Amino acid sequence: MSKAQPPKSAISPTRAEDYAEWYQQVVRAADLAETSPVRGCMVIKPWGYAIWENIQRVLDGMFKATGHKNAYFPLFIPKSFLEKEAEHVEGFAKECAVVTHHRLVAGKNGGLVPDPEAELEEPLIVRPTSETIIGAAFAQWVQSYRDLPLLINQWANVVRWELRTRLFLRTAEFLWQEGHTVHATAEDAREETLRMLGVYSTFAEQYLAMPVIRGPKTASERFPGAVDTYSIEALMQDRKALQAGTSHFLGQNFSKASGIRFLDAAGQQQLAWTTSWGVSTRLVGGLIMTHSDDDGLVLPPRLAPAHAVLWPVFRGDDTRAPILEAIEKLAQAMRAERFGDRAVEVETDLRDISGGDKQWEWIKKGIPLRIEIGPRDLASGSAMVMRRDRGPKEKESIPFAELPKRIPELLESMQRGLFEKALAFRDEQTHAIDDRQSFDRFFTPKSADKPEIHGGLALSHWCGRAECETAIKDALKVTVRCIPLHGIDGAKAAERLKEPGACIVCREPSQERVVFAKSY
Amino acid sequence: MSKAQPPKSAISPTRAEDYAEWYQQVVRAADLAETSPVRGCMVIKPWGYAIWENIQRVLDGMFKATGHKNAYFPLFIPKSFLEKEAEHVEGFAKECAVVTHHRLVAGKNGGLVPDPEAELEEPLIVRPTSETIIGAAFAQWVQSYRDLPLLINQWANVVRWELRTRLFLRTAEFLWQEGHTVHATAEDAREETLRMLGVYSTFAEQYLAMPVIRGPKTASERFPGAVDTYSIEALMQDRKALQAGTSHFLGQNFSKASGIRFLDAAGQQQLAWTTSWGVSTRLVGGLIMTHSDDDGLVLPPRLAPAHAVLWPVFRGDDTRAPILEAIEKLAQAMRAERFGDRAVEVETDLRDISGGDKQWEWIKKGIPLRIEIGPRDLASGSAMVMRRDRGPKEKESIPFAELPKRIPELLESMQRGLFEKALAFRDEQTHAIDDRQSFDRFFTPKSADKPEIHGGLALSHWCGRAECETAIKDALKVTVRCIPLHGIDGAKAAERLKEPGACIVCREPSQERVVFAKSY
Repeated sequence: MSKAQPPKSAISPTRAEDYAEWYQQVVRAADLAETSPVRGCMVIKPWGYAIWENIQRVLDGMFKATGHKNAYFPLFIPKSFLEKEAEHVEGFAKECAVVTHHRLVAGKNGGLVPDPEAELEEPLIVRPTSETIIGAAFAQWVQSYRDLPLLINQWANVVRWELRTRLFLRTAEFLWQEGHTVHATAEDAREETLRMLGVYSTFAEQYLAMPVIRGPKTASERFPGAVDTYSIEALMQDRKALQAGTSHFLGQNFSKASGIRFLDAAGQQQLAWTTSWGVSTRLVGGLIMTHSDDDGLVLPPRLAPAHAVLWPVFRGDDTRAPILEAIEKLAQAMRAERFGDRAVEVETDLRDISGGDKQWEWIKKGIPLRIEIGPRDLASGSAMVMRRDRGPKEKESIPFAELPKRIPELLESMQRGLFEKALAFRDEQTHAIDDRQSFDRFFTPKSADKPEIHGGLALSHWCGRAECETAIKDALKVTVRCIPLHGIDGAKAAERLKEPGACIVCREPSQERVVFAKSY
Repeated sequence: MSKAQPPKSAISPTRAEDYAEWYQQVVRAADLAETSPVRGCMVIKPWGYAIWENIQRVLDGMFKATGHKNAYFPLFIPKSFLEKEAEHVEGFAKECAVVTHHRLVAGKNGGLVPDPEAELEEPLIVRPTSETIIGAAFAQWVQSYRDLPLLINQWANVVRWELRTRLFLRTAEFLWQEGHTVHATAEDAREETLRMLGVYSTFAEQYLAMPVIRGPKTASERFPGAVDTYSIEALMQDRKALQAGTSHFLGQNFSKASGIRFLDAAGQQQLAWTTSWGVSTRLVGGLIMTHSDDDGLVLPPRLAPAHAVLWPVFRGDDTRAPILEAIEKLAQAMRAERFGDRAVEVETDLRDISGGDKQWEWIKKGIPLRIEIGPRDLASGSAMVMRRDRGPKEKESIPFAELPKRIPELLESMQRGLFEKALAFRDEQTHAIDDRQSFDRFFTPKSADKPEIHGGLALSHWCGRAECETAIKDALKVTVRCIPLHGIDGAKAAERLKEPGACIVCREPSQERVVFAKSY
């Protein structure tokens, strides 16, 4: 090996070497999740699940603060319910788990087989989403305009049979929340759709530290059965976009299908207007790909399962007891501090393995702060603090007495720093492109060695016609991610909108730029 | 109607008139849940789901405090996994949802049918419980004694195909938590089994205010594949027992089936020892049947979705604004108080419906405190406070200035009172019975009109033989609920144990009394 070799990183391959494999290795090294013997289904391990629990806690609070209540609806959807909305069934019938029997019996060749006597009269679909089964309930709950708006959320597992799966990003079973609301007017329902899109972008930016662009999807990318679908879109480090959350204005399509009607103030029967919106464990994938580096996971402190880890470094036996005591005392004092909506969470790692092994294990797991205390630190009354957003060997010595109080400030600065870094990266990779040749070049891999590193976000004009959208998709596998809305905090993208131009494909007039990208 | 008619109750029929129907009506009147178009599956409505959320929050904290971490495993179990443990498959194959296809296509007669081209090679079972799929993961996670104990919990939905279902008590799909742990020794695993049984009884008594008897089940009532099953058993108001939680010592049965092995400190490969334990949405059914009365739901304050509701009573327009202002101020001050592990939660009901309608709606929903403020209260600077554990018309006038501070104390006294009342009821209905004739009489309905009101708990001797257990079951539909353990706080039952006697059936010697009862 040549001497010019860059320093070895904890994750191999690196992002530049093989991005897709790097992602899998980060998930594995941070002990977040693994594949299971059930095709396409994942096992979410404790460190990964704790991130999801934090996501749930924060979002649940935001949903409740906007007037929503949680409820729970059946896992199974009768086939006939799915069939009620034409586009919806078209969109979901091709990739669903179908329950056909309710019993196993001994088969002829040993082992068990579905009991032919126990075949269901009507097959049941494991919910891919719950508009139809929740709609059936809502049709009973809603009688009068006084019952509106009805604002319900469900935390649940859903199943969409996927051929190509990837931990967190695309799995057959995933965990999510699905909001379902009913309104008296189209205006109210549209307002709700945008309100929840706003909740999602606030959450993405303030908690995941992941800048997002929000806006409506084109017709071809809409949720099956929706009148309008809005999404938040984030840019990953391989310059592909990730759709991180969607909010749908369903018009009266599902009200018609499920019979959600109400008596208005004038005593007239009206069809209601509905919305639905969801985010899923995919957000964990977005978090990983936004911040992690070649040494492993980097966690935004507000969603980190733990904020800091403390471990001792021993040299001989005489300082053992006082070092352990100092660690215990510091951990206690740190736990008494608060960061964001919860107490500072501290791990102490007293395992009998080498300091170097601990160091790298916690780096790979992405814990925000690593704190080491050895005999010299004890003597000087200070601890060595290492931040996950700095180089692995960069240390700051902080006196014991000051450390607990400084934790929230350190975490806050990391949280802000991660967002700013991600935003700067997105801005760098976002380009206004007006001619087709540059557009094609932008989306052509720079080198044959690294086909996984893509162009970025192209802000280009589009006439609005499906043909032009399809032409781009067929030629480059690039799609319109969304038509960006104004008012995205701190995003350069927003400033460039609403200007007349010519469609990148057909040169017909266009009123605004849209976001083109390759996507997950 | 005769004048001697008792006062009308809010729930019809009453418990005495038709207990089973009373239960359904309480669930409906309190707006807790409803049946769904999917056979055997329920819809949990916001008021009912909020009880479950409180149960989850408290239990989750207790699990974490005892060292457990949450994770998530697949919904589907390959058929071959279920087959690995002989008793287990026997116990669950008869009542499971079987997924056989992964796509629907247009059928010959219109509509969709499972696509014959998309039949799964191996059918998948919707998890009825997760020992086998979690065991497969644990076999990989556990390598050395240093990995033990492994203490994992999962919050999930499970499906057991049930013919006769009842909201919360027995449904095809239900929500639960399942703890799964791995240990190096049988002793450690047994200790864990009992520790979690202890957590369940503490939770049942301190939060659900539901006294429980805990102890091992007989062989015939064990979890399929367990070496020992322990349960907590509560007495409902119809004098039937409810199994409210179970904790299983699985020995090495599932370790063998899944291959969970570890290298011990001496470098020898060993089979691990496992446990599992769970409680479900059935607890909500237990809560309802323990405390509710003929006016509807009664909620133990620690698990109530809200602790108090305030509403105004208007007489003319001039006091309207100051009354609303007083309500808003009081609600704010009350929300600043804490009760147990959370802030006091307050509803204000400003709907334009009659005070009487509000009164009864909140009584039926079981909210602990109802607070009314009218012009006279405003003038005297005090509010009318009504407790759900007192008669519907009983009121106490409390000055505005004192009210917020008194809320936690009022709630605590209700919580304690509900437990004491339930305990007194159970003690009244618990009898040591030594001869078969009295035993049979005890379990024979007192009147043909009320076949639903049963005997209660009989503490009787049993020789330990399955024949005698079966004889009782066949004759009276009465089973051994558990073999009570010592050390149940405040339960008379515990004091009566460990004495020599003669089996209630065969008169052979017995070392201890067991708990016989009809059950859910």
